[in-house]
Amino acid sequence: MTIFSKIVAGEIPSYKCAESDNFYAFLDINPLAKGHTLVIPKREVDYFFDLTDREIAEMQVFAKHVAQAIKQVCPCIKVGQAVLGLEVPHAHIHLVPMQSEGDLNFANAKLQLAPEEMQEIANKISASFHA
Amino acid sequence: MTIFSKIVAGEIPSYKCAESDNFYAFLDINPLAKGHTLVIPKREVDYFFDLTDREIAEMQVFAKHVAQAIKQVCPCIKVGQAVLGLEVPHAHIHLVPMQSEGDLNFANAKLQLAPEEMQEIANKISASFHA
Repeated sequence: MTIFSKIVAGEIPSYKCAESDNFYAFLDINPLAKGHTLVIPKREVDYFFDLTDREIAEMQVFAKHVAQAIKQVCPCIKVGQAVLGLEVPHAHIHLVPMQSEGDLNFANAKLQLAPEEMQEIANKISASFHA
Repeated sequence: MTIFSKIVAGEIPSYKCAESDNFYAFLDINPLAKGHTLVIPKREVDYFFDLTDREIAEMQVFAKHVAQAIKQVCPCIKVGQAVLGLEVPHAHIHLVPMQSEGDLNFANAKLQLAPEEMQEIANKISASFHA
């Protein structure tokens, strides 16, 4: 069971932003920017491109709706998207509010936000999310 | 008309990797790695998340099939994906063959490949692509 499956199961806490039957979104605990969110399929699949055509299509639409909620909540020019996938073996899309192209750089220093602020951001994204 | 629309129209040459009714894939001329490919919708849309649900779903499925072709042709652990979108105002997905997480970093030095090698890579991806 991956760490992300434990998050979906509630065995590890997360700052939940959105959920559907097949997908789950929660704040990255080492964010590149306020509102940096991870979108995952509930089904454990390591490599993003091993998702079925139907799954990857539905996941991208779900991620779009999460990105729209993030943009309403977190001031940014656009929300960027990235899939790297060489660390946690459970496919995930990063959604990162961007002010410049350099903001989507995983070598950048990560923010450290207080739990209260993380929860407030997650609550706002959740309230703005529409499936 | 964006530079990418001129590429689709054939007014600017490109190293074409794949094409469907609504999408087009071609090599990034400033690649982070051999096989770095851009996937675009033929319809001019600036912000990726302004694509309709149907468009973004179909584009992600098309990009998956391009990524599968890239992985067959370019030795890598996985193909990563990124959407930044603050430079060219025409939505595009970057597909980048990765050996490590650090390979999907747009601050990295870009490769300079000879036109013959670029064409060879594009031809191989094209031959491996299945819609």
